[in-house]
Amino acid sequence: MTSAPLAVSLGDPAGIGPEIVVAAWKALRTEGPAFVVIGDAGALERAPGAEGIALRPLASLAEGRAAFAGGLPILDRPTPHPATPGRPDASAAAAIIGWIEEGARLALAGEAAGLVTAPIAKASLYAGGFEFAGHTEFLGALAPPAADETARGPLMMLAAGDLRVALVTIHEPLARVPALIGHDLVVNAGLVTARALAQDFGIAAPRLAVAGLNPHAGEAGALGREEIEIITPAIETLRRLGVAASGPHPADSLFHAEARLRFDAALCMYHDQALIPVKMLDFWGGVNITLGLPIVRTSPDHGTGFDIAGRGVARSDSLIAAIRMAAAIAARRAGP
Amino acid sequence: MTSAPLAVSLGDPAGIGPEIVVAAWKALRTEGPAFVVIGDAGALERAPGAEGIALRPLASLAEGRAAFAGGLPILDRPTPHPATPGRPDASAAAAIIGWIEEGARLALAGEAAGLVTAPIAKASLYAGGFEFAGHTEFLGALAPPAADETARGPLMMLAAGDLRVALVTIHEPLARVPALIGHDLVVNAGLVTARALAQDFGIAAPRLAVAGLNPHAGEAGALGREEIEIITPAIETLRRLGVAASGPHPADSLFHAEARLRFDAALCMYHDQALIPVKMLDFWGGVNITLGLPIVRTSPDHGTGFDIAGRGVARSDSLIAAIRMAAAIAARRAGP
Repeated sequence: MTSAPLAVSLGDPAGIGPEIVVAAWKALRTEGPAFVVIGDAGALERAPGAEGIALRPLASLAEGRAAFAGGLPILDRPTPHPATPGRPDASAAAAIIGWIEEGARLALAGEAAGLVTAPIAKASLYAGGFEFAGHTEFLGALAPPAADETARGPLMMLAAGDLRVALVTIHEPLARVPALIGHDLVVNAGLVTARALAQDFGIAAPRLAVAGLNPHAGEAGALGREEIEIITPAIETLRRLGVAASGPHPADSLFHAEARLRFDAALCMYHDQALIPVKMLDFWGGVNITLGLPIVRTSPDHGTGFDIAGRGVARSDSLIAAIRMAAAIAARRAGP
Repeated sequence: MTSAPLAVSLGDPAGIGPEIVVAAWKALRTEGPAFVVIGDAGALERAPGAEGIALRPLASLAEGRAAFAGGLPILDRPTPHPATPGRPDASAAAAIIGWIEEGARLALAGEAAGLVTAPIAKASLYAGGFEFAGHTEFLGALAPPAADETARGPLMMLAAGDLRVALVTIHEPLARVPALIGHDLVVNAGLVTARALAQDFGIAAPRLAVAGLNPHAGEAGALGREEIEIITPAIETLRRLGVAASGPHPADSLFHAEARLRFDAALCMYHDQALIPVKMLDFWGGVNITLGLPIVRTSPDHGTGFDIAGRGVARSDSLIAAIRMAAAIAARRAGP
């Protein structure tokens, strides 16, 4: 068990980040897990729901656990201008990126048990010079896996209810997906997922269900050949490497309650194949987990919510679930 | 209200068709809807569950409604050889195709209130010279819409629980889908769906939710441009034509319980985008409805089940739901 708190990067302060962080602290202050926010204290103070709660500005993360029950601990790293809910501001980009970098550094150093990231908006970060497709890719650069590992993260997993899905491709136009799916990419994703199921989720003999790409998983080649030429050989490689992988399964027969009992994670070929089932099972409480990194990292599976920010209607379910999951994974990695 | 019975084509007699037809008759014999099977009487007699039930071979469909409560009415059109469960036989292809043709003809003539088709296996029909992608396309040729209609069926809809989805593309390799999606195809599908919602489902002012193709519906072009170039203009055309169409919606935010309240049917761009939610909501009871034809046609949304045929374990939920839905649509089309 680690005694370090989690770090929570505030994300875009013009989004719903500040209000859901405040709500998460209220929900968790008594029983934990303890966390420390890295972000702009002013944005938290002005967030809906923050009236009457005490912020605890810290000099270092080490004080976080002791401070948590009494107030919302924060490493205050202000933005140049106060954020206006719903109006993202490119001048905040460097600060937002810095919060993630500091959180990753603290997690790598073991001062934070893990990093939970509130949502960012890629468009405003790009305006500030950000060059990554999202958190997942950015963290892959900040906290790279050891160079001698054959299977390399980062890999995106989403969890909702009793379902875990890992994604072979993520934020790609659908037209690009078939050309991207390759043997090594599928094998790597399968290995990273199987390792994470064992290491992070405590599943001794993880079962991986690999989805097909095409309708009916290609129907023996009649509806596409990627299953025959790429996915089935990749599953055979995974089996030779000791992973209990099944498939390719028709994606429409993989996600009902009975089917979900047969695997510990589904490996999906593209975004909506994975996200449709996740969001049907739990639209508000899904968690995004980055697999295959030396640090623990989770996040809510929703965006910045600029359209509802500042109104106090944003739901914190997903952030709370992400904080709890990060703590559980960190505890498992730390060992008994 | 029509007094004609429904016609049920038996589908592949080596599949689960015979046993689920017997089970459907048992479930419906008292309260209806009445139906007449078109198929091989021997296959029905040998089906699991058929012990002790009486077949009623008919000379014409007109006797069907009166005969239904006392026994399972059938227009007996035998296959050349008795079917063996689990072993499809290409010599049966002509008979299987003939059952569908006769059912369509009877429905067109008004002697059948509609046609419900038990599953066929395309591979064995192709061996027998069948040239269509499936029932939907075959019926489009057998029962073509009037030549002066601007919006033309056939279009596939699936219904499960409180969800209806209509498909712009169906059995296409995923790599072909983006190039197939075009303005006119989307508009046509939207018009056919909106008309059917009014005519067949009794929804006075139907609301159509159009899904995007790409993750996050393209995220303003960053993840694909089909939404900007094709789908949004098609939605605008649909609105000009009087259809209450919304979207393009990110597909992962369209199918949870709260979202489903906001539309009467979702228009999906490809197979798994539509089928994943349908089969998650009701894996066993989904119904396939062919929209935009002059005849009423439904079917179960599963296949022939060769792997379980003849063992008495096949579930008839979907066929029973298909029969009930065909009767309801036929009654609505016939008027009060």
